[in-house]
Amino acid sequence: MLLGTEHGTMSYYQRHLFFCLNQRDPPEKCCANAGAADMQKYAKDRVKALGLAGEGKVRVNKAGCLDRCAGGPVAVVYPDAVWYTYVDKEDVDEIIREHIQGGRPVERLRI
Amino acid sequence: MLLGTEHGTMSYYQRHLFFCLNQRDPPEKCCANAGAADMQKYAKDRVKALGLAGEGKVRVNKAGCLDRCAGGPVAVVYPDAVWYTYVDKEDVDEIIREHIQGGRPVERLRI
Repeated sequence: MLLGTEHGTMSYYQRHLFFCLNQRDPPEKCCANAGAADMQKYAKDRVKALGLAGEGKVRVNKAGCLDRCAGGPVAVVYPDAVWYTYVDKEDVDEIIREHIQGGRPVERLRI
Repeated sequence: MLLGTEHGTMSYYQRHLFFCLNQRDPPEKCCANAGAADMQKYAKDRVKALGLAGEGKVRVNKAGCLDRCAGGPVAVVYPDAVWYTYVDKEDVDEIIREHIQGGRPVERLRI
């Protein structure tokens, strides 16, 4: 199912997941120091392995600072505009299984 | 005005603009070689100067490869899920003025 948007178009990606990978100098909190790069790669590989990657389906993306550092590490799913934090691969798996595949946002991980 | 989303939440950013800044080796086409970094910085500075930056308003973001290289340089506005290509600052100004501020996608720049 492709999601319709405000402007009546279909989203090129059904769900587009952006991981903040921003690096800041200590003692500033940043997503990069919370394992964001590893988790983004893990999510991208999982989505590919599940056959979900590509046009009309899912894209897992690197992003610069999403400016929600205090809630980090953070990721956002568009066009749903649902924001998450995560700790480990189990959290990422749950976001992929429940939200990306199932369309049900993972309430316990939302920020 | 905050946009409602499928899940009944308000989008943290009313409009979240991502510029692909990906660099690929020649002769592969890539957004980085089309001036994407300069245009992202220009857009971010313009949005800030117009007082549009921040929670509930607008964010201009760096992104890794958005995987639409053939149409590049590309940028996408979420949660609207409207994709653009652009050539110069005039194009970026038009996207900011018409779409980001005015809510009217710029049809001539859509991909």
